Amino acid sequence: MSHNATPSLRELENHSAFLERHIGPNDAEIAQMLAVVGHASLDAMTDAIVPGNIKSPAPLALPEAISEVEALARIRAIADKNQVFRSFIGQGYYGTHTPNVILRNILENPAWYTAYTPYQAEISQGRMEALINFQTMVADLTGMEIANASLLDEGTAAAEAMTLAKRSSKSKSNVFFVSRHVHPQTLEVLRTRAEAMGIELHVGEDSEAAGVDSYGVLLQYPDTLGRIHDHSALADAVHARGGLVAVATDLLALTLIKAPGEWGADIVIGNSQRFGVPFGFGGPHAAFMACRDAFKRSMPGRLIGVSIDAEGKPAYRLTLQTREQHIRREKATSNICTAQVLLAVMASMYAVYHGPEGLTRIARRTHRLAAILAAALRKCGVAVGTDFFDTLHVSGIDAAEIHVKAQRAGINLRRIDTASLGISLDETTTREDVIALAALFDAQIDDDAHGSASVAAGRMPVATIDALDREATEALPASLLRQSAFLQHPVFNTHHSEHELLRYMRALADKDLAMDRTMIPLGSCTMKLNGTAEMIPVTWPEFANIHPLAPADQTTGYKQLIDELEAMLVECTGYDAVSLQPNSGAQGEFAGLLAIRAYHRSRGDDQRDICLIPESAHGTNPASAQMCGMSVVVTKCDGNGNVDVEDIRAKAEKYGDRLAALMITYPSTHGVFEEDIVAICDIVHAHGGQVYTDGANMNALVGVAKPGRWGSDVSHLNLHKTFCIPHGGGGPGVGPCAVKSHLAPFLPKVMGGEGAVGMVSAASFGSASILPISWMYITLMGTQGLRKATQVALLNANYIAKRLAPHYKTLYTGRNGLVAHECILDVRPLEKATGIGAEDVAKRLIDFGFHAPTLSFPVAGTLMVEPTESESLHELDRFIDAMIEIRQEIRAIEDGRLDRDDNPLKHAPHTATQVAASEWTHAYPRELAAFPLPSLKLQKYWPPVARVDNVYGDKNIMCACIPIDAYKEEAEA
Amino acid sequence: MSHNATPSLRELENHSAFLERHIGPNDAEIAQMLAVVGHASLDAMTDAIVPGNIKSPAPLALPEAISEVEALARIRAIADKNQVFRSFIGQGYYGTHTPNVILRNILENPAWYTAYTPYQAEISQGRMEALINFQTMVADLTGMEIANASLLDEGTAAAEAMTLAKRSSKSKSNVFFVSRHVHPQTLEVLRTRAEAMGIELHVGEDSEAAGVDSYGVLLQYPDTLGRIHDHSALADAVHARGGLVAVATDLLALTLIKAPGEWGADIVIGNSQRFGVPFGFGGPHAAFMACRDAFKRSMPGRLIGVSIDAEGKPAYRLTLQTREQHIRREKATSNICTAQVLLAVMASMYAVYHGPEGLTRIARRTHRLAAILAAALRKCGVAVGTDFFDTLHVSGIDAAEIHVKAQRAGINLRRIDTASLGISLDETTTREDVIALAALFDAQIDDDAHGSASVAAGRMPVATIDALDREATEALPASLLRQSAFLQHPVFNTHHSEHELLRYMRALADKDLAMDRTMIPLGSCTMKLNGTAEMIPVTWPEFANIHPLAPADQTTGYKQLIDELEAMLVECTGYDAVSLQPNSGAQGEFAGLLAIRAYHRSRGDDQRDICLIPESAHGTNPASAQMCGMSVVVTKCDGNGNVDVEDIRAKAEKYGDRLAALMITYPSTHGVFEEDIVAICDIVHAHGGQVYTDGANMNALVGVAKPGRWGSDVSHLNLHKTFCIPHGGGGPGVGPCAVKSHLAPFLPKVMGGEGAVGMVSAASFGSASILPISWMYITLMGTQGLRKATQVALLNANYIAKRLAPHYKTLYTGRNGLVAHECILDVRPLEKATGIGAEDVAKRLIDFGFHAPTLSFPVAGTLMVEPTESESLHELDRFIDAMIEIRQEIRAIEDGRLDRDDNPLKHAPHTATQVAASEWTHAYPRELAAFPLPSLKLQKYWPPVARVDNVYGDKNIMCACIPIDAYKEEAEA
Repeated sequence: MSHNATPSLRELENHSAFLERHIGPNDAEIAQMLAVVGHASLDAMTDAIVPGNIKSPAPLALPEAISEVEALARIRAIADKNQVFRSFIGQGYYGTHTPNVILRNILENPAWYTAYTPYQAEISQGRMEALINFQTMVADLTGMEIANASLLDEGTAAAEAMTLAKRSSKSKSNVFFVSRHVHPQTLEVLRTRAEAMGIELHVGEDSEAAGVDSYGVLLQYPDTLGRIHDHSALADAVHARGGLVAVATDLLALTLIKAPGEWGADIVIGNSQRFGVPFGFGGPHAAFMACRDAFKRSMPGRLIGVSIDAEGKPAYRLTLQTREQHIRREKATSNICTAQVLLAVMASMYAVYHGPEGLTRIARRTHRLAAILAAALRKCGVAVGTDFFDTLHVSGIDAAEIHVKAQRAGINLRRIDTASLGISLDETTTREDVIALAALFDAQIDDDAHGSASVAAGRMPVATIDALDREATEALPASLLRQSAFLQHPVFNTHHSEHELLRYMRALADKDLAMDRTMIPLGSCTMKLNGTAEMIPVTWPEFANIHPLAPADQTTGYKQLIDELEAMLVECTGYDAVSLQPNSGAQGEFAGLLAIRAYHRSRGDDQRDICLIPESAHGTNPASAQMCGMSVVVTKCDGNGNVDVEDIRAKAEKYGDRLAALMITYPSTHGVFEEDIVAICDIVHAHGGQVYTDGANMNALVGVAKPGRWGSDVSHLNLHKTFCIPHGGGGPGVGPCAVKSHLAPFLPKVMGGEGAVGMVSAASFGSASILPISWMYITLMGTQGLRKATQVALLNANYIAKRLAPHYKTLYTGRNGLVAHECILDVRPLEKATGIGAEDVAKRLIDFGFHAPTLSFPVAGTLMVEPTESESLHELDRFIDAMIEIRQEIRAIEDGRLDRDDNPLKHAPHTATQVAASEWTHAYPRELAAFPLPSLKLQKYWPPVARVDNVYGDKNIMCACIPIDAYKEEAEA
Repeated sequence: MSHNATPSLRELENHSAFLERHIGPNDAEIAQMLAVVGHASLDAMTDAIVPGNIKSPAPLALPEAISEVEALARIRAIADKNQVFRSFIGQGYYGTHTPNVILRNILENPAWYTAYTPYQAEISQGRMEALINFQTMVADLTGMEIANASLLDEGTAAAEAMTLAKRSSKSKSNVFFVSRHVHPQTLEVLRTRAEAMGIELHVGEDSEAAGVDSYGVLLQYPDTLGRIHDHSALADAVHARGGLVAVATDLLALTLIKAPGEWGADIVIGNSQRFGVPFGFGGPHAAFMACRDAFKRSMPGRLIGVSIDAEGKPAYRLTLQTREQHIRREKATSNICTAQVLLAVMASMYAVYHGPEGLTRIARRTHRLAAILAAALRKCGVAVGTDFFDTLHVSGIDAAEIHVKAQRAGINLRRIDTASLGISLDETTTREDVIALAALFDAQIDDDAHGSASVAAGRMPVATIDALDREATEALPASLLRQSAFLQHPVFNTHHSEHELLRYMRALADKDLAMDRTMIPLGSCTMKLNGTAEMIPVTWPEFANIHPLAPADQTTGYKQLIDELEAMLVECTGYDAVSLQPNSGAQGEFAGLLAIRAYHRSRGDDQRDICLIPESAHGTNPASAQMCGMSVVVTKCDGNGNVDVEDIRAKAEKYGDRLAALMITYPSTHGVFEEDIVAICDIVHAHGGQVYTDGANMNALVGVAKPGRWGSDVSHLNLHKTFCIPHGGGGPGVGPCAVKSHLAPFLPKVMGGEGAVGMVSAASFGSASILPISWMYITLMGTQGLRKATQVALLNANYIAKRLAPHYKTLYTGRNGLVAHECILDVRPLEKATGIGAEDVAKRLIDFGFHAPTLSFPVAGTLMVEPTESESLHELDRFIDAMIEIRQEIRAIEDGRLDRDDNPLKHAPHTATQVAASEWTHAYPRELAAFPLPSLKLQKYWPPVARVDNVYGDKNIMCACIPIDAYKEEAEA
C-alpha cells in the first residue's frame, strides 16, 4: 500500500463513533431505505416533510460529536466538582444503602430500565409483580387498604392528596388545612397547586386543625422536625365534621410506630427513597399514596391489580384505568400520567431483600443511634426534643457556629434558625458518625466497639457508646408503638439470600419484554436506545449521594451540569430559558401553563382563562389546563387529521381577551407536520394569547426546526423520549419547561429562591441524578448527530409506512404523502370485515416477540407506530414481516381459511403451557399459534400469561400480593 | 414497649449481614435440615464427619465479618493506593477501550459471569456461539485453519505451542529454538516449562534459527521491540528439515500485516487482551492458539465445534474432548483444563461490535499515531526503529533521564536498557498523548485539532500533528501488507449498533443456564454465589487500568491486596507461604510439583522422580506430574472409595529414595473425609517424599481443618470454587500454590525477581485484577462466616444425600454414614434395569430447569452432586423434587408404564419447537415432556436445542461460525 492510499489521522479519528452506534441503520442501509421512501438523501426527504417556514436556517450551535471516552472524561470532571459530605439534613431525604445486588441487577440492568409502562399486561407481568409488592408494602406499613404504584415525589403526592380529599370529602369547605410542620418543600408544592386550583390553604399548628372548617387536613408523622404526635383525637374531630385526614409519613418509622391507618388517616403519602434509592440531589425517588378502599376510584396515579387471563390464571394488569387523565380529559383534576416505576421496583426489592425483620432491625438501630446521640447531647446540656424516631431537634445553641464546625468535619446538618438545627440519622449512620456529631457540640464519646477515641484537648468524655446505649431510653411514645404485623406475605420472607433475590429478580425480568429484546415502537410515547455510556454516571457517588439541600459549595458540579443542560435544551428548542424542575412531562406542562397564567396576571390580564385545545391533543393537555384554573375549549380537526385553523381563528376571536393559550402538539399527534403552524401562532398572538407547544414530539424536530423560533411561547419536553432518559417501566421522567424570555420570570422557583411561581416539584431540580443521561446524549451526538437522529427517525417511520402500505392504510400523511416520525395504521376496515381489531393485532404481535405500538390513540381502532432512529433496519424489517404476516392471517379470515372466532389473532398471545398441552382444541395448528414465522423457532419470547381479562379485573379489584395458594393452584391446574 | 425489651445497639448492629446473605439456608432452615441429617447442631455434625486428628483446635485467626459497605470502603482505600498512569509499556499488554455495553452486559452481568464450563452443551449454546466467534476471529486474523477457545496467557500459550510442536513435528530433535525477541515473560515461562519437561531451549537471533537443528521455532511477529520481519524464508528453511514454526503475534497488527498463516506459520499464539479487556495488572486475559488443521487432535485447550442435535439442527458442543487432560491422564503432555472464557467472550464481542472495518480503523489510527511520533522524534535527532506497527524502539538516548521525565508526566515507558526504551501506542492513545510523549524528548508538537499547545521555553515546535501526519510515511513493510479479507461472516458485520449488540448479547445469554437461574451443583467443580459486592471492585479503574509492568511505586495498592490475600490463604490452609501467580488450578498444581522437584534437587535428591497418585485422582494430577518429568505410579482405592493405605505404604517402600511425592485429594474425590490422612502423610515423609494435597475440595475444609497442619507440604487452591472467583463460563481461574516453609524458596519467581523456580504464568501475579473478589469474600465472611460456610456446605450435601436416599444410592460415605461436601449418586443399577443412564438423568434435569451435576466422575455411570453453602433450602428442595420425579419416571420404565426407548428421559431435553409441533409421536404426553412438575408451568427454561449428537460432532469437525444459510434452513425446517 502506498503512502497516498493511507487515510489521514483526521479521517481515522472516529469522533462520530457514538452516533453511529446510536443510530440503527448505517449509511448503506439509509440509502437503501431512502430508495424505498423515494428520496435521494436525508436532507431531500426532510425538505419534503418539514414546512419551509419553520425549518431552522442554521445547524444547532452545539459542539461536534465526541467519543464515549471523551464524554465520560468530561462528565467525570463535572462530577468531581461535587463534594460528598455526610448528610444528616433529613427533611424527607435520608441516607440508605442500595443493596449491591439491586444496584447492579435492577438500576444498571437494561432488562429493567428499558422497559415501558405496563399497558401491555401480558409482557409486563414481572414488573407488575414488583409493583404489586410495592403496593402491598405501602399498604401494610401505612395500615391502609389500598396503595398505588408510586407517585412523583412527596410534595406532589401531598398535592394529589389535597385534591383527592377534595373529590372525596363530605365537607363543602374549600379550605385545606396543612400543618406547618410538614416538610417545607411539601408546603411549597401545595401552595403552588392550591393557588392554581383555587383551593384555600390554611397553614397552622396541629392544635389549630380541629378548629378550622376544612375539607381536609394534612399532617406529618413524624413531623418535619422529627417529633411524633398522637393525632387520633384530631383525626376524630376532623372526621366528625366530615373532613378527611391526610398524613405524610416515613415508611421506616412505621416499622416501629403505629400505622396512620390505625389512628384515623384517610390518605397516607410519603417518599420511599430511604428504601434503597440514593439521594440523587433530590430525585428520582418513588413517592407513594395509600388510602381507604372507598377512595380507590378517585386515587390518582397507576394502580396494579390482579385479574385473570384467558385460562383463568391470576395475571396482573393496570386496573381502574378510567381514573387516568388521558380518559378524563377535561374533567380531570390531576394530570398525573406516570409513576416512578424503576425506583418503586428498587424500593420494593429492598423490602423483599430485608423483610419485616430486617427493616425493623434497621429502624431500631437508627433509632438507637438517635437515642444515644440525644443522651450524649443532653449530658452536655444541649436541649434535644423528645418523642422522635430518627431526627433530633437541637435548640438553644449557636447554630451558625455548629454549622461551621460541621462543614469543617465534612458533615451537613439541617439549617432551621440561628438557635436550632436538625440532625437526622439513618441506615448509613455509624458509631463513628455519632461520635463525630456529638463532637460538634463538644460532647466527647468513646467507641467501645472500635477502641477508645483519643481524648481531644479540653474535652471530657461523656461516656462510651455502649454505656450511652444502656442508659438512653427509647424516644418513641409508648402509646404509639406499633403492635400490628406487616409484610407477612411470603414474598417478603423468602428471598433473603443474595442468590435467591438475584434469581427472583431475573425470573421477573424474564417475564417481560423490554428494549433489550425488542423495539417498542410506541406512537407518541416511543423509546430510543438508552446508551450504556449515558447510564454510567448516574450511579457515581458524586451524583448519587448528594442530599438535595446540600450547600451550594458542595454542588458546583451539579450546577454546571444543570446550567449546561439547560443551555443545550435552549439551543435545541429555540426558547430562551429552561427549568429542569418538573419531574414528568405532565409536571412540565403544568409549569408551562402556570407561566402563561402568571404572565397574563403580571400584565393585569387576570381574565384570560380560556385554553384552546384541539381534539387530537394528548389527554394531559386539558387536564393540566384544568389544574391551572383554565377553561378548556376544544377545537376541531379536519378530515386529514390536521387542526382546523378556521375553528381556531373563530374561537380566538370569540373569546378575545379571555384567550389565555392555545395548546398544540407539533408535529401533530396524527404524525404530521402541519403546514399552518406559523399562521396559527400568529392568530393566537393577535388575540393576546400564548402558544403552548406540547413537546412530546420534539424528537421529530431537534436539529430541524425550533418551536421557539416559529412563534411558540412555551413547551415542555419529554426527556425520556427525545433525550434518552430510560422509561424504567413507567418512570422516572424528566419534563423540563422551556419558555421564551418574556415567560422566563414565571418559571418555577427553586427552594429558598424568589419567583412569581412556586415550586411544582419537591426538589429544585426534579430528577437531578438522571440529568447526566441527557447531558451525555447531547454531548455524544453533537450538532450533526442530533440532526441525523431526527432525520433517521423520520426515515424509519416513513420506511415502515411505505413498506406496509400494500397491507395497512396509513391514516394521515402530510405533504408529499409522507408522515412525520410516526404513522397511524388503520385497522378499522379490517375489523369491520373480520372482527379482528387493533387489540387483537397488538396481542398477536406478542407471539411474534414484539411490544405492540400505541393502541387506539389518537384514533380508536388504530395502531400508532413510532420507530426511533436507534432501531436498525434489521429490527424494522422484523417488525414489518410480523405485521405483514398478521395481515395475511386477517386475509385468511376474510377468505375463510381461518375461522372468524377461533383464530390465532383472537386467542393471542399464546403461552407455552397452552401450545405444549396434550389437548389442543383450536381450529388452527399449534405451530401457527407459536411460530407464525420460521425465525421464531430460533428465538422465541413466551408470554407468562394468556390474554388478560380486563372486565374481570375491573369488576374484582384486588391490588395486593396474590396469596401464595393461588400460585399453587395455578401450577397444579 | 419498655426500655428493657429494646435490643442493644450491639445486638442491632448486623455485622454478619453479608454472611447471612451469602449462606443460603437461614438458621431456622439449618435446624430443620440438621433434623433430617440427624444431628443437633452444625458443630455436632461436623464432629461426626471430620476425623478428630485433623480438626483445627482454634478458630481462624482472621478478623470478624464486616458489612458490604465497610468492606467496600476498605478495598476502596486499597485501590486508591494504586496510581493509574498512562502506560505505553507494551510488551504484550496494550491500552484498550472496553465498549461500555460489553462492560455492563457481559463482565458485570451474572448471566455471563456465573456460567459454568459448557460441558452440558444444550444449556450452553449462547456462550459457545460467543466462543466460536472467538475461534473464527482468531483463525481469520492469524490466517490459520483452526483456533481454540482461548488459553491462559501468552506465556503459557507459547509453552503449549512448544509441546504441541514436539508432539507434531517430524523432526527428532529435542531442541526448541526461541527467538530472543519474544516477550521476556514468554521466555521466562518457556524456560520453566522446558526445564521441567526436559526440552532443550535454544534462544538466539532470528537469523540463527535456520542454522539450529530444532524440532520447532518460536518467533514473535511483530517482535517484542515492535519490529516486523519477513520470516517466510526462515519458515521454509525450518519446514525443509521437518521442523515446525510457531509464531507469537498481535491480533490488532494482523488487520494490517500479512497473516502468519500466509507466510508459513504452523502454530500461532498470542493474547487477545487489547480487544477490549483491561490491563488488570496482568490478567485475566484470553490468550489464543491457532494451528494447521492437521494438528487439531493434538491442540491443547478447549475447542468448540458445530454438531447437530437430535433433530438434525446445528448445535454447538465442546469437541475433541479426548484431547483433554482428564482423559489422557498419565499420557498427558499438557495439564490445561480451563480457558479464559469470560475474557474470550469479551474479546469476541469487541470484534463483533467493531467488525473488520472498525478493527482496521483502530489499527490504522494507532499506526498513524506511531508514525507521527516517530517522525517527530526523528526531527529532533532521536533514533527510532523502522518497520513497526504500534511500538517504537527508541535508542541512543539517556533512558534514565527520559524515564524520570516520564514519571513526572504520569507516563510509563518500557524499560529496555540505559540507552534505549520502548513506546507502544494503542487504541486509547490520543493526540495529546503523542504531544506529551514527544515532549519527553524535547520535541514539541502543536495540535492543530485542539488549538496550539503553548510553546515551552527553550523548545521549538517541530511541526503540528497534522503536518507530521502528512509527511510521516507508513512504517509497515510493503511486502508484508495484508491483502486477505477477514471477519467476513455476518456476525461480525451486523451487530454494530449498540442496540443490536445489546440484543445479540441478551439473546445469547438467554439460551444458557447460569447461576442466576439455577444451582450448578457440580461435584468437584461446584460453584457458589459470586456476591455482587465482591465483583464491584474488579472494574474500578484503579485495579483494571494498571499495566502489569507498572513501576512498584504505582502499585502499592495491589501489593497490599496481594500480601493480605496471601496471608488470609496462609491462615485458611495452615501453610506458610502462597504464590498467587498460577492463573488456573492446573497451573497451581504444576507450580506445587515444581516446588517439590526443586526442593529435592536442592538437597541433592535428583533421583526422586516417582509420583504416587491414587486411581481416584483428578486427571490433572498425573498430567501435572508428567509435565514435571515425574513418573506416575497409580495406587489403588478400596471398595469404599478410600485410598488403599497399604498400597501406598508398599509403593513408598518399593520406590524408596526415588519417591518424590504423593498427590492426594482431600476430602477425597469420592466425597469422603478419609480417616487415614495423617498416617498417609507420615508414610510419605518417612520415605523422604512430599505430600501434595490437591486443594480442589478446600471448600470442605476452610475453618474446620488445615492441610498444612496435618502433614501436607503443598496444595493448590481453586479460588473459583472456594473463594468466589466466578466461573465465567470456563475461566478466568486463579490457582494459588500454598506451601510449607521448606518449600517457600521454590515458589515461582516474579518478573525480574530471583528464585530457584521460574515463572509459570506470564504475569507475576497471574489474574491479579480478580483477586479483589476473594479478598472481599474472606473479608466479608470473617472467621465465623468461613467456618459456617464450610459447615453448611457439608450440611447441604448430607441433606441431599439423606433426602434422596430412598431413591438413589449414595456411593461412598465416611464415618457415621455421612458424606463430606458432595455425594455420588449411583445410577448404574437403574441403567442395568432400564437402560436409563447418568447422561439421560443429566439431560432430563434440563427439562426441570437445572444444570446437571458432574457426570461420570470420579465413577462412570454416576452423578456427583455438590451443592454449596450459598444454595437455599428452597433451591435444594427444588433439585431434590426433580431428582425424585426423575426416579419415578425411571420406576415407570421399570414398571412398563413408560416405554423403555420412547420415554422422556431418553429424549430429553425437550425444546419448545418439539412440544409445540402439531406432530407429536412420542409414547408419552407433551406435558410430561415439558412440565414434569407443576411448578414448571410458572417458570420454565427452554433449551435452544435438543440433545446434541456427540458422535456426529466428533466425526464432522467444524470449529468456525456456522454459515448463515444453515440457520435459514433450520428456521424453515
